[in-house]
Amino acid sequence: MSLHDSSILFDGLVVSRWSPQVFADMKKGGLTAANCTCCVWENMRDTLLNIAAWYKRYAEHPDLLMPVHSVADIRRAKELGRVGIVLGFQNTSAIEDRLDLLPLFRRLGVGFIQLTYNTQNLVGAGCWEENDSGLSGFGREVVGEMNRLGMVVDLSHVGARTAEDAISVSQKPCTYSHVCPRGLFDHPRNKTDDQLRRVVDRGGFVGVATYPPFMKQGKDATLDDCVSMFEYMIDVCGEGNVGIGTDFTQGYGEEFFDWLRHDKGYARRMVPQRGSAPMVKGLETLADYPNLTRAFEKRGWSEARITGVLGENWLGYLARVWGG
Amino acid sequence: MSLHDSSILFDGLVVSRWSPQVFADMKKGGLTAANCTCCVWENMRDTLLNIAAWYKRYAEHPDLLMPVHSVADIRRAKELGRVGIVLGFQNTSAIEDRLDLLPLFRRLGVGFIQLTYNTQNLVGAGCWEENDSGLSGFGREVVGEMNRLGMVVDLSHVGARTAEDAISVSQKPCTYSHVCPRGLFDHPRNKTDDQLRRVVDRGGFVGVATYPPFMKQGKDATLDDCVSMFEYMIDVCGEGNVGIGTDFTQGYGEEFFDWLRHDKGYARRMVPQRGSAPMVKGLETLADYPNLTRAFEKRGWSEARITGVLGENWLGYLARVWGG
Repeated sequence: MSLHDSSILFDGLVVSRWSPQVFADMKKGGLTAANCTCCVWENMRDTLLNIAAWYKRYAEHPDLLMPVHSVADIRRAKELGRVGIVLGFQNTSAIEDRLDLLPLFRRLGVGFIQLTYNTQNLVGAGCWEENDSGLSGFGREVVGEMNRLGMVVDLSHVGARTAEDAISVSQKPCTYSHVCPRGLFDHPRNKTDDQLRRVVDRGGFVGVATYPPFMKQGKDATLDDCVSMFEYMIDVCGEGNVGIGTDFTQGYGEEFFDWLRHDKGYARRMVPQRGSAPMVKGLETLADYPNLTRAFEKRGWSEARITGVLGENWLGYLARVWGG
Repeated sequence: MSLHDSSILFDGLVVSRWSPQVFADMKKGGLTAANCTCCVWENMRDTLLNIAAWYKRYAEHPDLLMPVHSVADIRRAKELGRVGIVLGFQNTSAIEDRLDLLPLFRRLGVGFIQLTYNTQNLVGAGCWEENDSGLSGFGREVVGEMNRLGMVVDLSHVGARTAEDAISVSQKPCTYSHVCPRGLFDHPRNKTDDQLRRVVDRGGFVGVATYPPFMKQGKDATLDDCVSMFEYMIDVCGEGNVGIGTDFTQGYGEEFFDWLRHDKGYARRMVPQRGSAPMVKGLETLADYPNLTRAFEKRGWSEARITGVLGENWLGYLARVWGG
C-alpha cells in the first residue's frame, strides 16, 4: 500500500457542488474526511435545508459517506473506507441573531464555523470590508459558546482586526483553515507571517489553500509551486501546525462564483470579477490528491512530514478543539 | 426501596411550564423519563428555539436532566437517577412544508410526533375539525419518513379518519399517547373501544390521560376513578399495551390554555372555554406520581401489572418503534 493510501487525509475546506461524481472522486482521491461547507450566505432555514440534503446523502450513500463528529469518527471512517463529512459554516448567518442555536448545529454535525465571510455580519468584519469593526459583543459570546461546545473558530475570510480579537478572546486555538501566505503573494485574502504566527503561537492551525488566484503564479501554478508554498508555511508556522485546505469548488460554474463574490450573495460585488477559478495543474479534481502526495515525495519530504501534513496534524489540532 | 422507587416510570405526555420547580417535582415524583412537548403551534424557527431552551436546561442541570434518544438511554437515566427528556411535537407545524427536516429533528432528540393538533394541517385533520380530510399525500410521506427514522406516530389529538388512515399506512405501530376512553365518557377527544383496539391490534400503544375534563367525574375525579379508567383501558387493550400519559400542564395559567384552545394559537376557538384544567385530587403535581402507584397497590394490582403500567409497557413499545 502506498504512503498516500495508508495515510489519513484531511482537507480543511471543500465547497464543491455535491454529487455522486464528487463523492466518487473524494473516495478515489483517498480523502478520509473534510470540512464541507453547508453555509456561506444562507440564513437559518436555508442552512438547515442544506444540512437536510446532507442527511439524505448519508442515507443514499451509506457505503461511501459518513457523518463525523469527532477525531475517533475520522479514524473510523479511514478503517471503513468511507469519506467522513464534517459540516462547516463559512459564515455565522446560519445562526441569525440566536446564540442558542449553536448547540443544535453542533449536535447536527457542524464542527467548523468561520466567523465572517468577506463582509460585515453580526459577529465582526470580513477581510474585504473597508473598515474592520473588530469582534462585536455578540461575536464574543459566539466565540465563547463555540469554545464551550468544542467548535473550530475559523478565521480564513475574517478581517484582520476581527481575527486578532477572536484569537485573543478564544479559550481554544483558532484556525486559518484555507489560506495562502502573503509573504509569497500580496493579496487581501492572504495572511502575513505575523498573522500566521499569531494563530499558531496560541496553539492554532493553518490549512494551506492550493488555490491559484491566491498564488503569485496565478493560473500557471503547478504542484511544485504548491509544495514550495507548503514549505514556506512550515517555515513560518512549524511542521506540526500545517495541513491541507484546498478550497475545492469542483462542479460549480459562474453563477456560484458570482453568488460567492457578492455581499450576501446578491448585493455589492466584493471580489473582483475573474471568472471561475482555474485549478492547479495536476490538482484539478478531488480524485487528484495522490498527485500532491507524489509531489511531496519527489521533493524529498520525510514520511513523518508527509503523513503530518496530509492529515495527522489536522487531527492533533481537532482533538485539542473538539475534545475526545 | 418501594415498588414505585425501584420501577421505571415513563409518562407519555408532559407539557408543563419548564422550570427548576417542575424539574425538582419530576425528580421527587420518581419520573424516569417523559415525552416532553416542544411544539404545539410553533413553526420551524420557534420550535428550534424551544429545543435550544432544552439544550440550555441540559447544560444548566446536568445532575437532574438528561436527553434520551433510546430505550437504553431511559434505563441509563434510571441508573443515574436523572430525569430523561424525550422531545415531542404535538403538531407537524415544526416541519412546515419540508419532509427533509424530519431526520434533523430526530437527531436533535425528537422521538414523538403527533400528526395534527385539533385542527387541519398539511398532514391531515385534527379531532376538533368538522370535516376530516383523512391523511394527505404529504401526510403519507411524513408517516413513511417517521417509520424509516423510528419516530413514534402519535394520534391523540388527530381526527378519527386521519388516524385510521395513519394506522393503515404506518409500517410501525402508532400510539394514542394521552387519551381517555369514550366508553366511560362521551367527549370528542376521547377514543372509542373500536379506535383503541384498532391501534393496539397493529402492535400500538395507549397512554391513559389522568385529565379530569375527559373523565365523567370532571373536577371531582379521584385517584380511584383513575385506577378504574386504567382498568377499563386494560380490559379493552390488554395489560401489556397500556401506560401513563398524564398530560401534566403544571405551572401554566389561562393564557397558555387560551393559546392551546385556539386554532394556530390565535385564530378561531376550537375547544370550549372552561378555564384552567382542574387536576385529579392527589395527582396535582409531577411530585405526586407515588400516589398513583399507591392507588394501584390499594386496588390489589399485581407487581407485574404495576411495573408494566408505570413504564415497562411503554419501553417495550418504544423499543419496537425506535429500535435499539
